[in-house]
Amino acid sequence: MTVLVTGGAGYVGMNVVEALLARGDDVVLMDCGTLPSAVHRTLDAYGRRMDVVSADVCDTAAVASTFAGRDITGVIHCAAVTAGPAREARDPGSSIEVNLRGTLNVLDAARRHQVRRIVYPSSGAVYGESLYRLTRIYEDSAPVLPVTLYGVTKFAAERMCVRLRELWRLDVVCARLGTLIGPWERDTGVRDNFGTHSQLARCAVRGETAVLPAQEVSRDWVYSRDVARGLLALLDAEAPRHSVYNLSSGGAWGSVLDWCARLKAAYPGFNYRVALQGETPNIGYTDRDRYPMDVGRIMQDVGFRLRFVPPAAYDDFLDWLQRTPDFWR
Amino acid sequence: MTVLVTGGAGYVGMNVVEALLARGDDVVLMDCGTLPSAVHRTLDAYGRRMDVVSADVCDTAAVASTFAGRDITGVIHCAAVTAGPAREARDPGSSIEVNLRGTLNVLDAARRHQVRRIVYPSSGAVYGESLYRLTRIYEDSAPVLPVTLYGVTKFAAERMCVRLRELWRLDVVCARLGTLIGPWERDTGVRDNFGTHSQLARCAVRGETAVLPAQEVSRDWVYSRDVARGLLALLDAEAPRHSVYNLSSGGAWGSVLDWCARLKAAYPGFNYRVALQGETPNIGYTDRDRYPMDVGRIMQDVGFRLRFVPPAAYDDFLDWLQRTPDFWR
Repeated sequence: MTVLVTGGAGYVGMNVVEALLARGDDVVLMDCGTLPSAVHRTLDAYGRRMDVVSADVCDTAAVASTFAGRDITGVIHCAAVTAGPAREARDPGSSIEVNLRGTLNVLDAARRHQVRRIVYPSSGAVYGESLYRLTRIYEDSAPVLPVTLYGVTKFAAERMCVRLRELWRLDVVCARLGTLIGPWERDTGVRDNFGTHSQLARCAVRGETAVLPAQEVSRDWVYSRDVARGLLALLDAEAPRHSVYNLSSGGAWGSVLDWCARLKAAYPGFNYRVALQGETPNIGYTDRDRYPMDVGRIMQDVGFRLRFVPPAAYDDFLDWLQRTPDFWR
Repeated sequence: MTVLVTGGAGYVGMNVVEALLARGDDVVLMDCGTLPSAVHRTLDAYGRRMDVVSADVCDTAAVASTFAGRDITGVIHCAAVTAGPAREARDPGSSIEVNLRGTLNVLDAARRHQVRRIVYPSSGAVYGESLYRLTRIYEDSAPVLPVTLYGVTKFAAERMCVRLRELWRLDVVCARLGTLIGPWERDTGVRDNFGTHSQLARCAVRGETAVLPAQEVSRDWVYSRDVARGLLALLDAEAPRHSVYNLSSGGAWGSVLDWCARLKAAYPGFNYRVALQGETPNIGYTDRDRYPMDVGRIMQDVGFRLRFVPPAAYDDFLDWLQRTPDFWR
C-alpha cells in the first residue's frame, strides 16, 4: 500500500517513514522544510518506493495536489508545531494554523480521496496537569487539562478527528504519544523542546562535555521506533475498538546516567557530570516528573508490544548514531 | 469606560451591549453581519455613546483598526460560530477560524492596546459528555469532554486565553455559559441552534400553533440578561481569583409549558399542544437532559446573583417581545 506521511522528515515522521519502507510499503513523504543530507541518503536507498513532496499542511491546494494522482490508501499525519514558551508567546497563531487547521486540510483531502485509514498522532500533552497528579494515566479516566498551546491544539485536533469520524464517516484513529527517545530528532525550525537523550547524544558526537541538572526527571519515555510500530499497528488494525489510544512505554525508563555511560563507551571524547552546587547545567529537561500513560488499551486492541527498552533501545540508538555521524554536525 | 463587544449584534452580544449602555458605559459594537432594524432602533437611542463598527474578527487588520484611535479599556469577546451538525460537516473550518483564530486576533489587539481586562464567554459545551454523566458540574472537577466542533473550539480558545494570560500577562477571565433564554436570539447566519423558548415566542408573535415534543428536556437555562450581568461582574471585579467561571442559573428551570401559558395570555392568537403519538413536533430541543453547572464560584468571587428566574424572567422577556414586535417578522 501507499502511505502518506505528513511532516515526514520530522522526528516522528522519519521513524514512521523508515518503518513503512522497511516492511515494503510505498511512502509519500510530505514536508515543508529542507531535508538534511542524512535524511536524503537514508531515503534514496529505497528508490522509487519513496516519493518526496515539498508541501505545507497549511496550504490547502498543496495538500490536495499531493493526494491527486497518487493512490494513497493510508495517512499518518505527523506534521505539527512543537512550540516552546518563547514561540507560543511570539507566534501563537502558528500552533492553531499547523496543528489544527493543517489537520483539517489533511482530513478533508483524505476524505475526498477515500483513504482507508488516517492515523493521527496526538500527544500526552493533552493530559497536561493530570500527568503530574494521577499515578497512572488512562485514556478515559484521566482529566484532560492541557496547558501549553501545543497541548491545547493537539487536543482540539484530536477531538476534531473524532467528531469528523462521526460526521464524515472517516476512519481515523488517534494515538496520544509519550515523550520520544531515538533517531531523527533535530531542530526543524518548529521543534523547540529538544529531548534530553538527544542533547546528550549530540554532545557525545561532538566530543563535548555534558553538565546534567542535579535532579533527574522521571518519565515514561518511549523509543521512537516503538512509536512508529504502534502507529503502524493502528494503521493496519482491522477495526480498532476505540478512537484514542495512549502510545508510550507505560513505565519508568532507567536513569539518564545509563545512557551517558553507553555514550561514553562509544564516544571516548565525550564527558559528562552532574552539575555541582551553583553550576549551570548545559543539558535540560523540558519538564518535571511525570506519571506514566497506561498502554493496556493499545496492547489489547491492536496487539502492540514494546520492542525497544534499555538496553535494546540504547543499542539501536547508538547503532543509528554511528551510521549517521553527520546528522548533528 | 469604553467597552468593545465583538459579535455585539448577536444573542449574547446584544444583551451585553444593552447592559453596558444602561449603566452608562460607552460601547464599541463590532459585528460582521447586517444589523436588524430592531437592533438599530434600540442602539440609536444611546446616541454618541454607541459606536458601531462593521468588522470580522477573522480579519486581523480590521480588528486592529477597530482598536486604533479608540480608548477601549475593556473587551467582552462574544463573536462566535455556533455550528450545528450540518455546518460542522459542511464547513468545519469556520469554527476554527472564528472561534479560535478570531479570539487570538482580539487578544492580540487587546494586548497591544493595553486593555485593562478581557472577558471571554466560553461555553458549557466544553464539558460535553460530562453534562449528562455528573449530577452537578463544577469548574475544576468535571472532566472536559467536548464533542461538537463548537465545544472543541470554545475549549481551545478558553485554554488559549488562560495560556496567554500567563505568557502575555494579559488580564483575561473566562465564563462558561449555560443555555440562554431571552431577548435578541435570531438567525445571524452562524447560529444554528435556535433555543426552545425563542422558537415558542416566535410562534406566539406570528400567531402560529406550536407542537411540542412529547418529552420535555431538563436544563439549567439562564436568562440572557443575567448572563450579561455576570459578564459585566467579571469585567469589573478587581482581581477575580480564578480564570474560569461557570455562568448559568445553577438549577433546573420550570416547565416549558409555563412559558407557553404566559405567551398564550399575551398573544391570544397563539396555540400550543404536546405532540400526539405519531405527530411530528414543530418545536425542538437542541439537546437531551443536562445536569446543572454550579455557580457557587462566580457568586462567591465576584458577588454574582441571579435576578431573572421565572416568573421575573418571563415578565421581562414578554415585555421585550412587546416592545420589539418586528424582530422575528
